[in-house]
Formats: sequence, structure tokens, C-alpha cells
Amino acid sequence: MQTDLTCKEMSTRCSVRKSVITDSQDIPGQPYCISVLKEGYCLSQPDGCTRADGTISLLTGPKTILVDTGGPWDREFLLAQLETRGLKPKDVSVVVGTHGHSDHVGNLGLFPDSLMVVGCDISQGDLYLPNELAEGQPYTIDDHVSVVPTPGHTGRDVSVLVKGTSVGVVLVAGDLFESCTDEDSWRALSENPEVQEISRRSALQTADLIIPGHGPMFRVHRGSSN
Amino acid sequence: MQTDLTCKEMSTRCSVRKSVITDSQDIPGQPYCISVLKEGYCLSQPDGCTRADGTISLLTGPKTILVDTGGPWDREFLLAQLETRGLKPKDVSVVVGTHGHSDHVGNLGLFPDSLMVVGCDISQGDLYLPNELAEGQPYTIDDHVSVVPTPGHTGRDVSVLVKGTSVGVVLVAGDLFESCTDEDSWRALSENPEVQEISRRSALQTADLIIPGHGPMFRVHRGSSN
Repeated sequence: MQTDLTCKEMSTRCSVRKSVITDSQDIPGQPYCISVLKEGYCLSQPDGCTRADGTISLLTGPKTILVDTGGPWDREFLLAQLETRGLKPKDVSVVVGTHGHSDHVGNLGLFPDSLMVVGCDISQGDLYLPNELAEGQPYTIDDHVSVVPTPGHTGRDVSVLVKGTSVGVVLVAGDLFESCTDEDSWRALSENPEVQEISRRSALQTADLIIPGHGPMFRVHRGSSN
Repeated sequence: MQTDLTCKEMSTRCSVRKSVITDSQDIPGQPYCISVLKEGYCLSQPDGCTRADGTISLLTGPKTILVDTGGPWDREFLLAQLETRGLKPKDVSVVVGTHGHSDHVGNLGLFPDSLMVVGCDISQGDLYLPNELAEGQPYTIDDHVSVVPTPGHTGRDVSVLVKGTSVGVVLVAGDLFESCTDEDSWRALSENPEVQEISRRSALQTADLIIPGHGPMFRVHRGSSN
């Protein structure tokens, strides 16, 4: 189901229509399929606290790639989700932590043998590899998957760009987008809203579907009327 | 052993002498003792890679407080270190991740029941608590231990300030300081060197001993000759 929800992003010049998808957590694709293992949430509580967890996504194809690992309390959930798919942690070849907040990088320790991309740091065990993510350059995993710098929410956020899915280009975006309808909330959560606004605009011009950090996935429709 | 190493920090106006301590990983104190479970390192490799891990420190006293958790590969090491001290993960009441880099927050998932302070986010399970760390205010754990904002290396670094040790005030500083002799290296690793310089100056005026993120602890001697 797509809810036809028009959200003008930033200015009419780059206006897009976004439609939230609430009835599917799976995106088929060739060669990569994407499954949302856990849909993130962010719920203000009456006492000023916030209940929150980050979206956890799994790419299956030539490589098995986990994007974000949820909060520290998600360990058993994540193991069970992998097991449901016949996977053990050692089968995950790449783990991407979109940024170093505790609701996204809570379970890196499950994957000591995976290539680890956390923000702009790329490591295999304790060996940190040179890369240019912090200088704005993508890190290519293969012809269909790349890690792209999308700073702003923190200084070193990254997202995962997947080509060749049934809905076109998918961006697993961490907290670049909190949700489809985050226009009134994302700035307050951003370390650098001006930089994040640029990253968001670029994402909306690139991706056909975005998986945000704290809400259901949404389609991006460009070229619609303002 | 203290190596009498003079390192003028930033300017003569705030010049201090720092002396590295290489023969002890334990600081007695009342009511808190501090143990460095793992001394972090950062070693450039000939091929352009870097071998690195973050310092892991444990405070024992009225509460058991772990400061940083090492990289994802440190899980078994960390469990063994705790066990040596008769501790299980559930005995750790507070876990502080000084910042969200993978060599510091690799094992948050071992502590799902602990109060979790990662950068400026404080959570108990998925309940995130209001705090003012990002606005520059400390978060008090008790009369002797507080989490203090020390931004610069990332936008949301924190350090742990411990009063009442045998050497005075100790700052467990994450990557605010890479090591005692990091004058030529810390800026290249900093998201915001100007902000970090202010945080470093403040630390050097406050702490009698600093536990850095990637090297041995060092004493801070103020009021010495320039």
C-alpha cells in the first residue's frame, strides 16, 4: 500500500512527492534483494523521554550486507532474524553502520569477521583501510552496491545505495531521513542542518525508494507537479 | 615509571608538562579505582592502512562503569577481562562510549541492561533520556564521576571525569587525546580541530591524569616553567 502523501522538500525547485509504503518490508531485486529486518521508530514519551530504535536492513545477493545493527538490546532479535534466513553472523560479509549512534551501532560485536564500515571508517578486524568517504567520495562494494557519504545528522554519516532493484535505485539512508514525514523534526536532531539539507536534496534526486532510520520506507516521485 | 616528557600544548599561555606512565594500568582511588583493561594503539602500516584499537577502561566503586568497549573484535577479550575481576556484563551499571567510532563502540551489545551513554545520547534500553551534554552541560553519575562534553574529534565526544583517585582528577578522554605525544597527529583525525583545541585546553586545566584513546596514560603538570 502506498499512501499518497505529498511532502514538498525544502523548496519548490526540488519539490518531490513522497509516498510511504506500509505493507512491505521486502524489495526484490537483481542481483540484490533488500529486507527491512526491523523498522526503526522514534516515539516521544509524556515524560520527555523518547523511545527509539534504528532501522535494520539486510541486502542479500552476491554478498550479504547488513545496514545498521539496531540498539544494544537488539542482539537476540538480530540473531533470530538472521537465523530465520539461514544465516549466521559470519555469513555477513559487510556491516555498515550509517553513523555512530547507539540505536544504529549497538551490535557491531556480533560481526568481528565482517568488513566493517561505520561512518567514514572502514576496517577489517583492527586494520583500518584508506578511503575517501570523509572527502565526499563513494566506497564501491560492487557494481550494484556502494556506500555514499551523506553527512549532516552527524559529521560522518553514510548511506548505502543499491541499484537494480524492482523499484529502481534504493537508498538505505540511516538518519539522513528520520521518516517520510520528518520535515518538522529532522533539523532538531541534526548536528549540521545546512550540510544535511544538501545531502537530503541529493538523495531525493538519486533514489527511487528510501529506507529511513526511524520509520517505514517511502517512494520518491520526481517530476511531479509543484 | 614516568618519562619526563615536556609537551607544550597549543601555546605557552596554557603550557603544561605531560609525563607518560608506562608501567601501570591501575589507578587506586576512593571511592573509585580505575583499570585500563586495554591500552589503545594506532600504528600506521607501510601499505597506507592503520592498525588501531581504542583504550578500554573500567571504573570500580559504588558503581561499575565501563568507558569504551574496543572494536568488534574485542568481544572475547572484554568478557575475559571482566571475568578476571569476577564481573559479568550485567554487573556493569553504566557503559560510556566516548564517541561513535567502531574502535570504541564495538561491543555495546554485551550490555543491553546497562545505562548507556554514547556520545551525547543517554539510554536505558530503547528509552532515551533527556540530557544537556550536547549543550555543553555535564551529566552527573554520582559525586565522584561525571560525563563531560569534550567535542571536536567528532561533534559529540564525551569524556569521563573521576575525582578522588590517588593521583587526583582523572579524565578518561577517548580520542580527545590520541596519546601523550599527539601534537602532530590529532588535528588530522579531528572533525573540528578548533573546537577540539578548546576541549583539550580545558581538559589540561582540569585533569591531573589523562587516559587517552590510543596510547598510555599520562600525568599533567601545571604551573611548571615554560
